[in-house]
Amino acid sequence: MKATVRIMLHDNVLDPQGKAIRHALETLGFSGVERVRQGKLITLELAETDPGKARQRVREMCEKLLANTVIESYEIDIAEQS
Amino acid sequence: MKATVRIMLHDNVLDPQGKAIRHALETLGFSGVERVRQGKLITLELAETDPGKARQRVREMCEKLLANTVIESYEIDIAEQS
Repeated sequence: MKATVRIMLHDNVLDPQGKAIRHALETLGFSGVERVRQGKLITLELAETDPGKARQRVREMCEKLLANTVIESYEIDIAEQS
Repeated sequence: MKATVRIMLHDNVLDPQGKAIRHALETLGFSGVERVRQGKLITLELAETDPGKARQRVREMCEKLLANTVIESYEIDIAEQS
């Protein structure tokens, strides 16, 4: 079973990486980019076969390791492997 | 208009960050994690209002700056802002 975790900084937290990307895009001539935010994308392949249990497990991983919940929020997608 | 770009290393490229996460999860007692890959998630707010043009523009940004297409692949989602 495959899980995808999207981790982004909270909307009110400064994102210097995003700002740097926005600035670089502008320098390259890409105008009209109003805001850029950068986050993390983590894919996990799990031995677990029950989607509910897998989601619960990944939520624990996020709380303990993957995300810093003080400044980041996370979303979890669980997909059965094709 | 909002664009989301998901950037992942090609499947055959080594991902030391992913390996480190997998190892850390194991150390924390999370067994059954077979593989972890870490990528980037970039959200862009664009002044462009035409979805087709926005996608084309973001594709150019990926090719020129956001992704290293030698080792990374990217996917683009375009969503009208609510």
